[in-house]
Amino acid sequence: MTLPETQPVFDESFRECFEKLLQWRRDVRHFKTDPVPEDVLNRVLSLADMAPSVGNSQPWRIVQVEGLERRSAVMEAHTAANRAARESYGETEQGKAYRSLKLAGLREAPVHLAVFVDPNPEQGHGLGRATMPETLAYSAVGMIQTLWLAARIEGIGLGWVSILDPIRTSCILDVNPSWSFIAYLCLGYPEKNYDAPELERKRWQARTPLSDRILKR
Amino acid sequence: MTLPETQPVFDESFRECFEKLLQWRRDVRHFKTDPVPEDVLNRVLSLADMAPSVGNSQPWRIVQVEGLERRSAVMEAHTAANRAARESYGETEQGKAYRSLKLAGLREAPVHLAVFVDPNPEQGHGLGRATMPETLAYSAVGMIQTLWLAARIEGIGLGWVSILDPIRTSCILDVNPSWSFIAYLCLGYPEKNYDAPELERKRWQARTPLSDRILKR
Repeated sequence: MTLPETQPVFDESFRECFEKLLQWRRDVRHFKTDPVPEDVLNRVLSLADMAPSVGNSQPWRIVQVEGLERRSAVMEAHTAANRAARESYGETEQGKAYRSLKLAGLREAPVHLAVFVDPNPEQGHGLGRATMPETLAYSAVGMIQTLWLAARIEGIGLGWVSILDPIRTSCILDVNPSWSFIAYLCLGYPEKNYDAPELERKRWQARTPLSDRILKR
Repeated sequence: MTLPETQPVFDESFRECFEKLLQWRRDVRHFKTDPVPEDVLNRVLSLADMAPSVGNSQPWRIVQVEGLERRSAVMEAHTAANRAARESYGETEQGKAYRSLKLAGLREAPVHLAVFVDPNPEQGHGLGRATMPETLAYSAVGMIQTLWLAARIEGIGLGWVSILDPIRTSCILDVNPSWSFIAYLCLGYPEKNYDAPELERKRWQARTPLSDRILKR
């Protein structure tokens, strides 16, 4: 692909579509089992890889989890962590609400990606992270958010599974023991598309006004 | 704004522009001092606020830093942290290269935003973060990456300043002491636009092939 010689201008139509992209990006837990074509997945991963990173270190490590035994083990790990979480809510109204939620689409999603961060990458030569080493993990998260948007453009949903023990998950996936686990992502075509979060539709938690989160100094 | 009744379709022209957006998003350190109109900044913040968050907790807290004394104090904190980083490279070739880099545009950027995370928000009722409380910070980072893209669409550059002591910065900004500092962001119109990272152009660190970061299991 040839790069434009001058910077691009983003017109009104692009802006409107970008806003729709944000409105319709969802954390998806209901997937069709249809496979995601390899070239589409690779395109989405290439776009995600253009995310910023501290010192240009690109510290994310992406594991495509294909082995059925490993997938089963991750599902069991999720079930265990979810059981513990469910019990912590007890026999309250909230506990009942929690039990009614589907919080992961691990069984149906055709693509499983685990994201790790290398906590000491040579790339970047340490720049920008002396006082805040957590910026390496944050770089991996910026990559994930870019992946989320790039996938949605292709009609692919993404669900971020965080109800997992990070150490257990790292062991299952047998990666470099120095890496830290950031996220387990399910990708696939969603059963349905929505412009509101599932947790809002299911009345667990609605979004609140931005003004609650901004202050001046 | 009226939401579309059915999900949007993202056509080829949108895809091409989205790829350009990612290619031309930069960590900007060279700003014009021209102000960013308030309505433009608010639009960009509203788009960023549509980012995903664990349990729909929206745990990011955004501080618009307007006071000149506080801005000066942040600049001094950056200078101190940068001096320490510079000295750690010593009198090597890399030390020389480091000293030649401009790593923040704090003096010129008209908009300063500090991003914090509330480590124990009521919103979301704890969902999804029992085994990985760091997903709250990660939610704030997803918001920042969304902000980065939304700003670039408006021609606004963003520079993430991580060469800061987080505790010192929190004290300067006098926020809720339970909040954790995530990032200090400079925003404004860039002096120039580039399709390659400054650290790549200045030969500190080039990007490397994605295949180095992907593995299968």
